[in-house]
Amino acid sequence: MIPKFNVLTPDQVQQVNDQSMRILEEIGVEFSYQPALDVLQAKGQRVEGQRVYFQRKFVEEQVAKAPAEFTLHARNPENNLIVGGENIIFMPGYGSPFIHEADGTRRNSNMADYENFVKLAHMSTNLHMTGGNAAEPNDVPDLIRHLKMTYSSITLSDKCFMGSASGYDKAQDNIEMAAILFGGKDVIKEKPALICLINSVTPLKYDDRMLGALMAYAQSGQAMVIASLVMAGSTGPATMAGALALQNAEVLAGITLTQSINPGTPVVYGSTSAITDMQTGSLSIGNPEGSFFTSASAQLARFYRVPSRGGGGLTDAKIVDAQAGYESMMTLMAASVTGINFVLHTAGILQYFMAMSYEKFIVDDEIAGMILRYLKGIDFSEDKFAYDVIKKVGPGGHFLTQKHTKQNHAKEFRRVQLSDRLSYDGWGKEGLDTNKRAERKWKAMLAEFQAPALDSNVGQALQAFVEKKTAEYLKG
Amino acid sequence: MIPKFNVLTPDQVQQVNDQSMRILEEIGVEFSYQPALDVLQAKGQRVEGQRVYFQRKFVEEQVAKAPAEFTLHARNPENNLIVGGENIIFMPGYGSPFIHEADGTRRNSNMADYENFVKLAHMSTNLHMTGGNAAEPNDVPDLIRHLKMTYSSITLSDKCFMGSASGYDKAQDNIEMAAILFGGKDVIKEKPALICLINSVTPLKYDDRMLGALMAYAQSGQAMVIASLVMAGSTGPATMAGALALQNAEVLAGITLTQSINPGTPVVYGSTSAITDMQTGSLSIGNPEGSFFTSASAQLARFYRVPSRGGGGLTDAKIVDAQAGYESMMTLMAASVTGINFVLHTAGILQYFMAMSYEKFIVDDEIAGMILRYLKGIDFSEDKFAYDVIKKVGPGGHFLTQKHTKQNHAKEFRRVQLSDRLSYDGWGKEGLDTNKRAERKWKAMLAEFQAPALDSNVGQALQAFVEKKTAEYLKG
Repeated sequence: MIPKFNVLTPDQVQQVNDQSMRILEEIGVEFSYQPALDVLQAKGQRVEGQRVYFQRKFVEEQVAKAPAEFTLHARNPENNLIVGGENIIFMPGYGSPFIHEADGTRRNSNMADYENFVKLAHMSTNLHMTGGNAAEPNDVPDLIRHLKMTYSSITLSDKCFMGSASGYDKAQDNIEMAAILFGGKDVIKEKPALICLINSVTPLKYDDRMLGALMAYAQSGQAMVIASLVMAGSTGPATMAGALALQNAEVLAGITLTQSINPGTPVVYGSTSAITDMQTGSLSIGNPEGSFFTSASAQLARFYRVPSRGGGGLTDAKIVDAQAGYESMMTLMAASVTGINFVLHTAGILQYFMAMSYEKFIVDDEIAGMILRYLKGIDFSEDKFAYDVIKKVGPGGHFLTQKHTKQNHAKEFRRVQLSDRLSYDGWGKEGLDTNKRAERKWKAMLAEFQAPALDSNVGQALQAFVEKKTAEYLKG
Repeated sequence: MIPKFNVLTPDQVQQVNDQSMRILEEIGVEFSYQPALDVLQAKGQRVEGQRVYFQRKFVEEQVAKAPAEFTLHARNPENNLIVGGENIIFMPGYGSPFIHEADGTRRNSNMADYENFVKLAHMSTNLHMTGGNAAEPNDVPDLIRHLKMTYSSITLSDKCFMGSASGYDKAQDNIEMAAILFGGKDVIKEKPALICLINSVTPLKYDDRMLGALMAYAQSGQAMVIASLVMAGSTGPATMAGALALQNAEVLAGITLTQSINPGTPVVYGSTSAITDMQTGSLSIGNPEGSFFTSASAQLARFYRVPSRGGGGLTDAKIVDAQAGYESMMTLMAASVTGINFVLHTAGILQYFMAMSYEKFIVDDEIAGMILRYLKGIDFSEDKFAYDVIKKVGPGGHFLTQKHTKQNHAKEFRRVQLSDRLSYDGWGKEGLDTNKRAERKWKAMLAEFQAPALDSNVGQALQAFVEKKTAEYLKG
């Protein structure tokens, strides 16, 4: 792996930290969930109504308890992931309510879409886990979605997956399911198997749904991404520095709560901060300012010695066109070269988080593969310098038929999975744009999908749990 | 400006340098031009036939004579460019024989296309100069193209431009024209006004056309990019390290020659090294391996204390689709964040250098603008941290109507020129993809173009020179 790119000076990182601490001490953060307030009050923090004023020293002490890196466990141990350090983890988009189709139409997403994206992420060689909510299953009652989604995540793939962030009870259900899969709650407390996305409500709030989930996961030792999405100009100041300080204060507050509940809880410093387009009033996610928030966040997380989350294949484009390509490459590259560890939204996002697209998923998978190749850098061992073959070929010669070429090219050069490298005439025979080629590819992949084997006792136990809980929720 | 990203360790840079020096000493470089051989032989280098074996110490001494940065002069001094240091200079593509049209057809480029790209580059706020050969004017006899192109470069824009690289005589013509424009050869010898692209013929050769131009420009103190395009796997080894060592040897040989002719000649270390796609045998330019060559080259140039050239909006895509977007963003970003100073091919390139596209030019102009915003980083002054407005708004509040927001957003957030940020329904009213929006934009720009005023005496003198030379060439 190549070195990490630092976009801020150490002094600038310190400045952001100082500004955030001042916000936490003097302005405070609102927690709309009494158990969370109780925890922080018991630790000596000043609580007024729902607002908590944090002592700087307390925040520093709590954040220092979070692990610098941790292992997230998959049912196939080969797919275990180390979150933090030198590692980068790619996964599908999260939370979009729509599917944008190749023909340009848009529709509500459903459970079949969710399962399809789990399958595609499972098959991808560039995505490391299957994510958590690659398509909102609008055709499943809200009360039981988390059961069906987690069941599908477990049965359709043996890569790591995410847990629900919809309150305490649903989080407990997902923890139960992970416990069934791995052999008990004690087992997963030692070896975390779930990671959940906890978002603040910017500016400076956390709601009860998120806090309930946070407490459940913290108590059971499961991992969390504590994330802030400042929309600079609307939910945050219209200055990059101010938005960053605000984001940082919110994330520190969330991490502080997790460590106050259960010291050592694995957490990830998360940023999706973005800007408000002042011409349209819209959220804009595919831009240099958001890319810079991501890059700066990687560095802030390193300052606090916790893993980082940010970026993705982010775009405001409505269809899979050139804009979708260039915005997604910028945002994923800005995350990757600066050392973001956990990249939610790597693949599939269109329309500023509003839609997932199968074609975009394939485009982003290619982008992810390109970036992984870039990050790998160069093998500088003596034979790779190729002195002998350069000498043999000499001025004006050719390397194509040399043994050294045959021995090395497949290791040195990544093979494209989607991009076209034909001659103009060769391409012209079909004349397909990238969107059409991507459509052909995901359909072929789904046709070839095979679910990895799962112990039938475990499968039955999971099914029984889902059926029991489903009956309870739908009766209640 | 944010810090520069170093992808190699200092030790790796040293390794590449050592390997290149060994190539120069033991394998040597062929120069197919007697005056160049005479120069190097007179300086004590061993010459056998056309092959020159360089002494390492001699190469080091000559390269050290090249300036770390220099000013390239424009007829409007506000458009003067500092080449090197912290600066990045964007300009159009160079040398493509075809135009790819918005309707998907392809045709030979002509003089009107050349002039159109000069106009568009002149109007762009993201491109710093108009380049040198943004479209090959196939409808003009080869003998006089350089005269007409340079005349148009001077009359249609007051930004910097490039000179011809087609042999000694044509270079002299361009030098004469620059001398007319700036008030004499002595003036431009002190204040270089031309920069020319000198390419090696990989592996390890320079031809007479390039060497003739090199000698003319070096003698008159004009600037040059000394560039190598190793096609790893065909004209170079199929290993990244080997290709880099080969490229570096070629560039060092060229720079050494320039400084042997005229110490202090402004030169730029250039790389367009790329890979051979082993599935198709084609040159591939829009990929992570080429991006890495660019990034590594920025660092090698810093090692030699000379400005660097590399990257661009490079793509193998045949049309302006998602692939064109993601490949171009990767290659331009890899150049920019690592500190490349001079980015030929920033805008317009399609089909691995074979075609220019007006629509792609507009796409790349947007990409360039995005990258310039990213490179600018964050203003960390106290007011930008926005503490007062964060305190005033408080948890759960809104920033949209705050005075601080109105005062800052336009300075902090770049306004898009091409990208769509409308709502889904807002976009759907026209439903145009990026290619179509780009087509509309360049047509509107050309309709609004106005040439910057030029002193009429200078204009007449240039016209007279072009007419006289044209008559000579076409008679001869």
